[in-house]
Amino acid sequence: MIEEIEGGITTPQGFKATGVHSGVKYRALDLGMVFSEVPASAFVGYTSNEVKAAPVQVMMKENSPKLSAVVINSGNANALTGRRGIEDVMAMKQAAAAELNIDPSQVGVMSTGLIGRFLDMHKIRYGINRAVRELDIGREADGLFAEAVMTTDTIKKEFSVRVRQDDGTLVYISTTSKGSGMISPHMKVLHGTTLTVVTTDASLSPGFSSKWQEILDNTMNMVSVDGDQSTNDTAILLANGKAGGAFADNDPGFLEALEMVMTKTARTIALDGEGATKLIEVQVTGADTKEDARKAVHKIINSPLVKSAIFGSDPNYGRIMMALGNSGCKFSLDDVRLTIKGGDLEVPILDSGAPVFQEERAVEVVRMAMDNKEVIIAVDLAYGKESATGWGCDLTYDYVRINAEYAS
Amino acid sequence: MIEEIEGGITTPQGFKATGVHSGVKYRALDLGMVFSEVPASAFVGYTSNEVKAAPVQVMMKENSPKLSAVVINSGNANALTGRRGIEDVMAMKQAAAAELNIDPSQVGVMSTGLIGRFLDMHKIRYGINRAVRELDIGREADGLFAEAVMTTDTIKKEFSVRVRQDDGTLVYISTTSKGSGMISPHMKVLHGTTLTVVTTDASLSPGFSSKWQEILDNTMNMVSVDGDQSTNDTAILLANGKAGGAFADNDPGFLEALEMVMTKTARTIALDGEGATKLIEVQVTGADTKEDARKAVHKIINSPLVKSAIFGSDPNYGRIMMALGNSGCKFSLDDVRLTIKGGDLEVPILDSGAPVFQEERAVEVVRMAMDNKEVIIAVDLAYGKESATGWGCDLTYDYVRINAEYAS
Repeated sequence: MIEEIEGGITTPQGFKATGVHSGVKYRALDLGMVFSEVPASAFVGYTSNEVKAAPVQVMMKENSPKLSAVVINSGNANALTGRRGIEDVMAMKQAAAAELNIDPSQVGVMSTGLIGRFLDMHKIRYGINRAVRELDIGREADGLFAEAVMTTDTIKKEFSVRVRQDDGTLVYISTTSKGSGMISPHMKVLHGTTLTVVTTDASLSPGFSSKWQEILDNTMNMVSVDGDQSTNDTAILLANGKAGGAFADNDPGFLEALEMVMTKTARTIALDGEGATKLIEVQVTGADTKEDARKAVHKIINSPLVKSAIFGSDPNYGRIMMALGNSGCKFSLDDVRLTIKGGDLEVPILDSGAPVFQEERAVEVVRMAMDNKEVIIAVDLAYGKESATGWGCDLTYDYVRINAEYAS
Repeated sequence: MIEEIEGGITTPQGFKATGVHSGVKYRALDLGMVFSEVPASAFVGYTSNEVKAAPVQVMMKENSPKLSAVVINSGNANALTGRRGIEDVMAMKQAAAAELNIDPSQVGVMSTGLIGRFLDMHKIRYGINRAVRELDIGREADGLFAEAVMTTDTIKKEFSVRVRQDDGTLVYISTTSKGSGMISPHMKVLHGTTLTVVTTDASLSPGFSSKWQEILDNTMNMVSVDGDQSTNDTAILLANGKAGGAFADNDPGFLEALEMVMTKTARTIALDGEGATKLIEVQVTGADTKEDARKAVHKIINSPLVKSAIFGSDPNYGRIMMALGNSGCKFSLDDVRLTIKGGDLEVPILDSGAPVFQEERAVEVVRMAMDNKEVIIAVDLAYGKESATGWGCDLTYDYVRINAEYAS
């Protein structure tokens, strides 16, 4: 039984957090910290963009199996900053480690914000010092941390659940994420950057990293706002084992709960995409391989023509098939079924690769289905047994407006 | 010496053409025909989209080495039309062949327009009959053919040149193309469909098809308006040899002239992209392989973030590097040089992977360079010796408006 609860990053036992104003941004909170009383097993997914921000480079290289703290700054991505950027990350780790009396290798760093500018380390050091002093702030910490991390997102991306493991241990999982809704002039540069921190008091063995990758592949990696992958994307899972109990690596309840919070996070990031008015869910079934199914989902969810058609509730389903045809996924057109769902409507569009109807009137029904806050595009390839689901958003005037505005 | 001349599809010797109103569209010309007095060697590039329109399927299967006529209808793409669509293509070929007294295998067919609707063959047959009767219309034919093919494009895409081969033969090359500016409610569905017909009175051997592919790879295949490849894209080259003279397969002047008209066509299609206000040229040099260079160009030219930044003259060059990093192209960030050119300005942005400047004032110069009708993004990877150039356009409010409007 998975139970959704009110809570935040410090809901699982043994975690503290806070969010402060360091001065990198003019007014808003811009530096968050999460701290675990005991070193937590750390599992991290990074952007696969070849141009990686300095903190991503450092964390990938160190690949620490345990972390006690994570420092997150917003307002400056510390990307395209060369050697000096790397040195600044090391300095952030050292500053936090000294204040927290831990080893620098146990400090994780994430950054988001403008690309191509050096960090003001005077401000960052001040922020770290202040954050450490405020870690004992209590339950208020969740909101401050979320605010420092989420910045200008328009929808809160905090989810907490509790679940009882098979061995009887009650464990908590909380996730706080930022992403996609970065509409302030200074944040929009890194549009699409997602930073996610998941805390849990369950115990996980080092071998869990492959499962974490699998969960990310099913959730965060199936979200696309515009197909542009950021230089800074990072998703970190901290498991400190404070709940006691057996390793949760293979516990069905724990796994389901973790995937559930990550799915909720992924959907919310898509819905909060820049300028988005609708959530688009693409379900591809009957694919030959999982990779094929994912390729098809990604191509459909990223097609500007599909996205703008959904924005206008324009029943241009030919575009969906065009995107499918460009995906590299194996299928036979003669077997494809396409259905569009929205609200209470479920409209079959293509059967055996040919249109179900030819009448203009029937097109109105497709339009009605599309005219909902959440639109589902279901493609059954009837070719194999694999499937994938992904989430995106419509392409709107506001997307263009937000991304065409000046960076400075 | 390549000489640009006024002309159209019938400028090369031995070609006739026309454009008529068949009734598929309400008023506009919607059926074009080009005819060669002698069977012409035909070289055809097709969409690589797995969902291919019926005429593409038929032509790929027949793969006729010689064509005497090409029929092009607009208003209906004959795509997603199953077996009946295939039968309709065969009927079009037979109707034209009977009227022209040639073999059906010598008739090429191209379609563009709405996806998922059956052709009204009564109208199509009428149009073919009428087109054949009007083939002797003379020079007016060029304009009628272009009108029937180009439909709602906002910029004329006709280019003609003459060039003297090494053997002294004077040959003509003319290209007429449609693409990207399909802003009428009925045409926009196949946004991005490009249909291109090139006529020449030069002689080409069957082996020229690999060179045609190479030229397409350098020109049409480097254009992207939104990364969505249509179900109907076709580029056909007809060489009827009426100029006499030796095979032009390896003639430097002929090859340069052919690539020149195709490059002009490609650039014009990009500039006429839906809602476009600017032409973006991306030049990638110093790549390890040609394929790498092309991958990098495509990823940059297709990035919605790059495209909307150029629209707003927003000096967000980090986005260019982000796109490069997502391309799968090999490079070392420490060696990359990025330059943005526009008007008379040439602004170095990144050198050795780090920003050239940090001052806000310098950003104004980037903005000024971007504030031009044509913006060049030059990326030197300094990794290998291969290069590629491609063309796209900015992402604007009008793109969203055009593509969000109702299909019907």
